[in-house]
Amino acid sequence: MHPYRRTLARYPQAAGGGLIDRRAFLGAGLLAGAAGVAAGAPAAAVGEQLPPSMLRPGAALSTYGIPSRYEASVQRLIKRPTVDVSPGTGSSRTPLHRLNGIITPSGLHFQRNHNGVPDINPAGHRLLVHGLVRRPLTFTVDALLRYPSISRICFIECGGNSDVNAANDEPQQVTVGAIHGLISCSEWSGVPLGVLLDEAGIAPDASWLLVEGADAAGMSRSIPLIHARDHAIVALYQNGERLRPEQGYPVRLLVPGWEGNINVKWLHRIKVTSGPMETRDETSHYTELRRDGKALQFDFIMPVKSVIVLPSAGLTMQGPGWYEISGLAWSGMGRVAKVEVSADGGRSWAEAALQAPVLPQCLTRFRLPWHWSGQPALLQSRAFDEHGNTQPTRSDWVSRFAADQEYHNNSIQGWGVTGGGEVLNVYT
Amino acid sequence: MHPYRRTLARYPQAAGGGLIDRRAFLGAGLLAGAAGVAAGAPAAAVGEQLPPSMLRPGAALSTYGIPSRYEASVQRLIKRPTVDVSPGTGSSRTPLHRLNGIITPSGLHFQRNHNGVPDINPAGHRLLVHGLVRRPLTFTVDALLRYPSISRICFIECGGNSDVNAANDEPQQVTVGAIHGLISCSEWSGVPLGVLLDEAGIAPDASWLLVEGADAAGMSRSIPLIHARDHAIVALYQNGERLRPEQGYPVRLLVPGWEGNINVKWLHRIKVTSGPMETRDETSHYTELRRDGKALQFDFIMPVKSVIVLPSAGLTMQGPGWYEISGLAWSGMGRVAKVEVSADGGRSWAEAALQAPVLPQCLTRFRLPWHWSGQPALLQSRAFDEHGNTQPTRSDWVSRFAADQEYHNNSIQGWGVTGGGEVLNVYT
Repeated sequence: MHPYRRTLARYPQAAGGGLIDRRAFLGAGLLAGAAGVAAGAPAAAVGEQLPPSMLRPGAALSTYGIPSRYEASVQRLIKRPTVDVSPGTGSSRTPLHRLNGIITPSGLHFQRNHNGVPDINPAGHRLLVHGLVRRPLTFTVDALLRYPSISRICFIECGGNSDVNAANDEPQQVTVGAIHGLISCSEWSGVPLGVLLDEAGIAPDASWLLVEGADAAGMSRSIPLIHARDHAIVALYQNGERLRPEQGYPVRLLVPGWEGNINVKWLHRIKVTSGPMETRDETSHYTELRRDGKALQFDFIMPVKSVIVLPSAGLTMQGPGWYEISGLAWSGMGRVAKVEVSADGGRSWAEAALQAPVLPQCLTRFRLPWHWSGQPALLQSRAFDEHGNTQPTRSDWVSRFAADQEYHNNSIQGWGVTGGGEVLNVYT
Repeated sequence: MHPYRRTLARYPQAAGGGLIDRRAFLGAGLLAGAAGVAAGAPAAAVGEQLPPSMLRPGAALSTYGIPSRYEASVQRLIKRPTVDVSPGTGSSRTPLHRLNGIITPSGLHFQRNHNGVPDINPAGHRLLVHGLVRRPLTFTVDALLRYPSISRICFIECGGNSDVNAANDEPQQVTVGAIHGLISCSEWSGVPLGVLLDEAGIAPDASWLLVEGADAAGMSRSIPLIHARDHAIVALYQNGERLRPEQGYPVRLLVPGWEGNINVKWLHRIKVTSGPMETRDETSHYTELRRDGKALQFDFIMPVKSVIVLPSAGLTMQGPGWYEISGLAWSGMGRVAKVEVSADGGRSWAEAALQAPVLPQCLTRFRLPWHWSGQPALLQSRAFDEHGNTQPTRSDWVSRFAADQEYHNNSIQGWGVTGGGEVLNVYT
């Protein structure tokens, strides 16, 4: 009997199309049944020749490491507007299907820049807190580094993520990174914004903040004061080290779970106000036009969402047999509570395993064993957060908005697997 | 009244020498008292000139990001043996005082290499599982990438970490990274070793494993089978992306909480055995010689430990006032339960705040507000893990071993602050 048939017999299917119980691969006690998952080759010769790397000394010690030259193709995917703008305007997206775990390496964290990446010498940078405050203050970076700090592992998602599937009537055959790669996840450390606001002293009639970046776009957004004071962080560190230039060096705002561009990079000004400022970046962009001609504005929180990254469009199955379905889920509202996966076009769903720790406003990796029979299949995932929110179908989501509205698309992604093993982006 | 005096009055000291209750800075509701911590400067001119970065477009989008040129000094500290060995032999240490949070950026993860960093093309790499198995197997990297995977955020610490304070009778005045920087923390993803062992089929008389790297040192260690099968991971990813060359690309073993060199890099061979193999790297090194002439061997688990990284040796205080004491704690046995800090040479201790999430075999960031009066002070930290283990004093620790024994030094670190604000490495 072929090994995977033994496993199939031992672990009853959790849903149609070959989805196996998520506990099959979790914990050593349950691993016995995993034999034959992807079957290593019999050892041809145990006394094999030594690999060449054992025959000569290796390279010298280095002060700062970089990826292997064999991984040079793992890159952010640059996407620029077709209009004539500066070379730094547009986005670069995280190649989600080349990664595992939840941390995005800082070098591959997506970027969305409205007029390029400024080169800021921290010695000259100032953060100004003014407006409806008792005493306007400026903070040097050295001063900020002395303040009490906190850390958060959380995602940032661009409000325009998954635009490819929103704006095109026909599904585009591009990678999961090109469709959904405007999301990344890091450990951020910095000063709770509330500490700085308290130093300046907030006036009684204050209710909003304007936050502005020191880039050539002067990217700025308005944020309700009460949320910013309790949850925002003036971030100085990403994944342990100081921010990368394209992530806002030397200072960015972090508002976990909120729309990407609210996490203003190159932060240089916070103005305490009595209302929203209606800036360019919250009026001409980042609003959601409905079919009735009205638009949702200040839709801050990124909704619950998930996407299978393996397999995904552009990849080819290596023949029938065992695969691990692997994906990412998240919610701007809190923790992911459950992710369900379907391999039969939504007729049945199986619950995926969630990798601990499951943190609020953070990517959660989900995994599920799958035996692909070699027949056409349709894979989908749907996440539920701790508040019971879940994802709409694409058709339901599209029906809410005017044509080509592309913000906050959290609809269910479909990946079609052909009998030949090709994986396609499909609308369901 | 000066702002920090207001805070002192509101938050009673938690211990002598100016240590304040850890809750003073945690949570927005408690932040009101933090006013004046490091006092931003009054805004000289609210209508200040625009920063130069706003006057011209920024740099182009990039496919793989690197740190800011203003952070070029944040480097691993290379330390090589004085004997004539290959340029890749020795260690490079993490500059702990330049980082925040718990994740070590992969480029700054410490390395300890016994004969350089091999350049391994993954297409030709094989992992052999043989010895006391039903069927010897070889795994290509592509095969390993298809197996079920798991992720762990955990530390790796070299058995020789903190050697500087073990081997020298007088405290060396070098940075915290030079003393304690052979520890780093990442999110690792890969295949549970048990899955691969189960595929090969373990013989009844098997009880140990030999694990060997494909570097020119053939670095190898013996591990009890039962622990490896239940806890080890054949790691393929670090912090989301594939391993860096100096971290074992394309495959390393991960045994969370166990001595660094057991986490064999460039893993190419696992032999299932009936006992330990007594390799060079577990006999001539990585044993702990006692005063009675006997040595501890196979002392796998890295003990509970902590170190204050800010302030630390080589830094200079910026005058009396508020500081955040920030440090790292960890235990190979499990979770950190508590970290205590003393500013008065151990006469009194205050409990530090632990940054969530607190994970097993993982770095835990601790923080505590401190008002430095400008008088000489002696800072120390001591961690307790969930099993009640804690750290010895340096004199107690030294007394257990022969002269110059330098492995597994988890004794309490002392940092002396002079009246002039200089921070010194001191033995206590």
